[in-house]
Amino acid sequence: MKSFGSDNHAGAHPDVLAAVVEADKGQALPYGDDATTAEAVRLVRRHFGEKAEVLFALNGTGANVIGLQAMTRSFEAIIAAESAHINVDECGAPEKFLGSKIVDVPTLGGKLTPTLVERASHGKGDPHHVQARVVSIANSTELGTVYSLEEIREIADHAHANGMLLHLDGARLANAAVSLGVDVGELGSKVGVDVLTFGGTKNGALGAEAVVVLHDDLVAAMPFIRKQSMQLASKMRYVSAQFVALLTDDLWRRNAEHANAMARRLATGVEGVPGVTVTDTVAANAVFAVLPPEVTRTLQEEFTFYVWNPGTGQVRWMTSWATTEEQVDDFVGRIREVATAYAGKL
Amino acid sequence: MKSFGSDNHAGAHPDVLAAVVEADKGQALPYGDDATTAEAVRLVRRHFGEKAEVLFALNGTGANVIGLQAMTRSFEAIIAAESAHINVDECGAPEKFLGSKIVDVPTLGGKLTPTLVERASHGKGDPHHVQARVVSIANSTELGTVYSLEEIREIADHAHANGMLLHLDGARLANAAVSLGVDVGELGSKVGVDVLTFGGTKNGALGAEAVVVLHDDLVAAMPFIRKQSMQLASKMRYVSAQFVALLTDDLWRRNAEHANAMARRLATGVEGVPGVTVTDTVAANAVFAVLPPEVTRTLQEEFTFYVWNPGTGQVRWMTSWATTEEQVDDFVGRIREVATAYAGKL
Amino acid sequence: MKSFGSDNHAGAHPDVLAAVVEADKGQALPYGDDATTAEAVRLVRRHFGEKAEVLFALNGTGANVIGLQAMTRSFEAIIAAESAHINVDECGAPEKFLGSKIVDVPTLGGKLTPTLVERASHGKGDPHHVQARVVSIANSTELGTVYSLEEIREIADHAHANGMLLHLDGARLANAAVSLGVDVGELGSKVGVDVLTFGGTKNGALGAEAVVVLHDDLVAAMPFIRKQSMQLASKMRYVSAQFVALLTDDLWRRNAEHANAMARRLATGVEGVPGVTVTDTVAANAVFAVLPPEVTRTLQEEFTFYVWNPGTGQVRWMTSWATTEEQVDDFVGRIREVATAYAGKL
Amino acid sequence: MKSFGSDNHAGAHPDVLAAVVEADKGQALPYGDDATTAEAVRLVRRHFGEKAEVLFALNGTGANVIGLQAMTRSFEAIIAAESAHINVDECGAPEKFLGSKIVDVPTLGGKLTPTLVERASHGKGDPHHVQARVVSIANSTELGTVYSLEEIREIADHAHANGMLLHLDGARLANAAVSLGVDVGELGSKVGVDVLTFGGTKNGALGAEAVVVLHDDLVAAMPFIRKQSMQLASKMRYVSAQFVALLTDDLWRRNAEHANAMARRLATGVEGVPGVTVTDTVAANAVFAVLPPEVTRTLQEEFTFYVWNPGTGQVRWMTSWATTEEQVDDFVGRIREVATAYAGKL
Repeated sequence: MKSFGSDNHAGAHPDVLAAVVEADKGQALPYGDDATTAEAVRLVRRHFGEKAEVLFALNGTGANVIGLQAMTRSFEAIIAAESAHINVDECGAPEKFLGSKIVDVPTLGGKLTPTLVERASHGKGDPHHVQARVVSIANSTELGTVYSLEEIREIADHAHANGMLLHLDGARLANAAVSLGVDVGELGSKVGVDVLTFGGTKNGALGAEAVVVLHDDLVAAMPFIRKQSMQLASKMRYVSAQFVALLTDDLWRRNAEHANAMARRLATGVEGVPGVTVTDTVAANAVFAVLPPEVTRTLQEEFTFYVWNPGTGQVRWMTSWATTEEQVDDFVGRIREVATAYAGKL
Repeated sequence: MKSFGSDNHAGAHPDVLAAVVEADKGQALPYGDDATTAEAVRLVRRHFGEKAEVLFALNGTGANVIGLQAMTRSFEAIIAAESAHINVDECGAPEKFLGSKIVDVPTLGGKLTPTLVERASHGKGDPHHVQARVVSIANSTELGTVYSLEEIREIADHAHANGMLLHLDGARLANAAVSLGVDVGELGSKVGVDVLTFGGTKNGALGAEAVVVLHDDLVAAMPFIRKQSMQLASKMRYVSAQFVALLTDDLWRRNAEHANAMARRLATGVEGVPGVTVTDTVAANAVFAVLPPEVTRTLQEEFTFYVWNPGTGQVRWMTSWATTEEQVDDFVGRIREVATAYAGKL
Repeated sequence: MKSFGSDNHAGAHPDVLAAVVEADKGQALPYGDDATTAEAVRLVRRHFGEKAEVLFALNGTGANVIGLQAMTRSFEAIIAAESAHINVDECGAPEKFLGSKIVDVPTLGGKLTPTLVERASHGKGDPHHVQARVVSIANSTELGTVYSLEEIREIADHAHANGMLLHLDGARLANAAVSLGVDVGELGSKVGVDVLTFGGTKNGALGAEAVVVLHDDLVAAMPFIRKQSMQLASKMRYVSAQFVALLTDDLWRRNAEHANAMARRLATGVEGVPGVTVTDTVAANAVFAVLPPEVTRTLQEEFTFYVWNPGTGQVRWMTSWATTEEQVDDFVGRIREVATAYAGKL
Repeated sequence: MKSFGSDNHAGAHPDVLAAVVEADKGQALPYGDDATTAEAVRLVRRHFGEKAEVLFALNGTGANVIGLQAMTRSFEAIIAAESAHINVDECGAPEKFLGSKIVDVPTLGGKLTPTLVERASHGKGDPHHVQARVVSIANSTELGTVYSLEEIREIADHAHANGMLLHLDGARLANAAVSLGVDVGELGSKVGVDVLTFGGTKNGALGAEAVVVLHDDLVAAMPFIRKQSMQLASKMRYVSAQFVALLTDDLWRRNAEHANAMARRLATGVEGVPGVTVTDTVAANAVFAVLPPEVTRTLQEEFTFYVWNPGTGQVRWMTSWATTEEQVDDFVGRIREVATAYAGKL
């Protein structure tokens, strides 16, 4: 299989697998009362601060929902980009579990701004309207863009000044951090985030996410919310061991740097290929490009990737920690070949 | 109080009050097992057909929610106009109670079309996406426009051809029917509607709505849904008596005709007033107009009405069964006076 | 119809109907921003204190749910008597709307005690268990019994000492108050109740309940909860007018005193009738009695009432504000006749 | 750590870990569209039939909830033993996610019977009552007992004859099957079960459960329900690989047989120990015994296990696939020692 379809098409990093096997030492208390989980929490706190509450969850949707549940009552709304994962890719899990409305906002590049948030938070105090309570952003975004520290800080300040909280969907937090050249921890309370998820799965884990709660008032309810949300693992050590691996010797950073570099290599590789236009700055590990549909179809016979917008012919190519230079170069070569041949026929 | 704020600023029609008093004859079985309710159901069925299931509910939000609940599972979505009452004016009651996402669509004049519905129903069969199951339209719409019979039929056909159902929010169904020159019953199964609400409150009742279920498969669950949705009155006869009154001697029609006529009189009255532009065809009992904000502010010292769009200066004026010609003429006179004076100052 | 089936088989008191007609004076702001509602709130506060937050709702289930919603998060549980209306007669509305578990407790006479509450609140702090947060009692209870002021105070003290809140379902609050010889207001914050409902419907209204919030922290969310719970009437004045009537010249008290007196007259009347045993102290407006099934069947040909426990032959007879002495005496006469005849045959 | 606290205190079986490592071969499609998952589904179907729909889930609570969600609407109730895991150990996840009431029934030994189910399903057709729709049993039960094939068949027949469905919580299905001397597949459609869970976690997996849907009408919604319930893994192969291991060379059976044998060895070992009474037949991998509290406290300084009933001094000892004969014998030796010493002091 040759896939640029998603970073979750990759397997698990060998160090992660090794840590899982390592965690399997005799008996241990379940539900997180074990030494591996204690170690994983300690490692996450090294980045996000000693006061951060850390809960491991089973997948990205679950991690988002339990964070958001802590932040909202059902008449309170979540403002998110129209393209946000919580809005379009979670089969309505937030609406189902929270009972809350997501007020979705068309954006440029998948990024909210204080102005967009302001416009979406009308009806404050009017019982006929849901009450804007949470701004939810993703970094990196579904569209491969990255919020700068300043951009997040501005949204956080606006949210807090208006009685709202800031949620950060960090399914690809590592990719955002290395894109910005900072530690993942810089994307937490320092820029005003109240709750974030720190994604392990797309960063080389088998399946593990961390919810990091940075607002004291939200902490007490978290264990109950996680359990009621069906996100509490009994043999937790196998989940937390994955974070021990990712947070040892900066594996999270190395994996994300590699993934991002492979995306840049791919974007650079297709420069000048006839009919192929990279449409967005490649900030993280996604490349969005417009191709002639015929070229796309031919390439898809050999490579797995998704058409993002059938109307414009835009496709998404994603790289991961496991993508090799050879795979990128092979793919670039074929793109060039197919696109050039197609251009010649026109 | 001089209000053109909403048709629910009006009181109840004397015939409705008389029917409520009339229903108060000694003891009766509760929860709808009484003679008044049987009579009200019979009268509603005279319009919507003998097979129609009729359930009275306590307010418009409740009536919408119980109809929609019968039509959806939580992973199924409702497609509605962005301006729809269920989307913006019910404090998230549908999301809370159904657990479903409302996929909202920007429209012209608050009206969906098969094309808009098609565009909003992507991701069919993909478990990551909510599954479009219900198209919900309102007639008349929040923007005072009216779907023609043909327009509804086209949406219904498209919905049914795609495995979807059609819901009609008829909080102002009477106004739509008289605007189209048809019986309210023509807006039911004849044009493909599966579930509708027939609003009594804005048509002269104290507080009473009917849910009319026209799709056999949905009927069995309705009594349980109504009860669980907190919409079952114990002394039901006082709710259903209101419909007995509205459906006797075509009171529903006379009330709606009057309300619509008053809106037309108002719209006609302000023609040519400097700085005042009626922005939409007046199809039912709402007039949307753009005014200079200064004129609006002066008028609001005396009259109650809402600014619909602060950005454009658009206001909404609504008339009801109780609005008198004198009230309209008085209002028109003041608008002319204030607007002319303001224009003179420019 | 001759019914001792329920106090909601009665109609509305003439003063209530008159108040509804009286409220119908021209235009008024909707959703409670009207003079009638302001007056009704003022009157309720005269009993429950100036700081009480008062919201009118459309029926008993709705009133219970919006109060309970303000008091719980979904992982928090409500402790209630197994026989409680919220547990068995609301079609799961609390579970649906709150997402919370009701921990139901077998009781003597439908009454909780601190000991029963304590036993039901296990698992505190354990994320695997729902967290007991609300104790919900009814006064009078589903079984016609009445909590004394001291009994409520003890439950309240126990609840508050354990981080819980006390909810009082007062669908028949007036009956309880007159049974205790106190004002309804004595059943509020003075005995430690945090949220209560004050039922109008069974006390002579058409359909109106009040939610009275006595705990400051719960107030801010109430308008949103009521709206999202589909319990906000647009033409609110017709709901609140009913409370104006009930709270004028102590109509609530006179109605409840009469209903309770009729129950006592009925219970006294059947004393000594062969085969008929009144099983519980008649504290409010319900009489529970055991009858031979054959006697019950014969009586039900003429009178409406419910078999409460088919196993024991227990029936429930309820009286209301509208029950007359003649109706009671007629019923007693027939019971005596039928039971005596049946006893003679044995 | 020396634990007889729960079978989830054990680690993962080496073959399971090996299968997880084995699944890690390059890229694969996510969300179950991979070869490992296809193989795991094939293996499960070998037991439960070709028509069985198989979905892997992330934990026991999640597996229960998605199965139950497919079987109920929110006004429909689930009848379960008072001691059932779904009733007491899932922090209200079923109530939250389904919006349904669990009607819990006191039982002998955690086992429902048709009579108990019948008694709990009152109010059929009455909109004031939740409608009994699902009977949920566990095998083995929370109390370590095991339903025979005949007992399940009787419950299933009763359920189906009354318009209900049968759900089986099989977190310990393997232990039940080996206790009965049958294949796990015998506990499916052959005895009338409509939906079951087949637990991997307690049988030697890291964390993996299978939902097996045996009723055709319920299949179509399952993928959406799983996703909306936050139970869909992106790198699914690591979940399904665990079932490949458990279902290869009957590892599931060997693990369960060993666990059950260790429980029997423990129960036999403490026979005749003064003051120690095994209270229930040891049918699966749990031993319930009554001990003097002083003995319990001394043992708990060295061994981990739970007091089940503080009132009676009853404790629960659980064994797993990983429990060794040495561990059992060591534990038995200490129990004997401590209990004998304590008896001597009396």
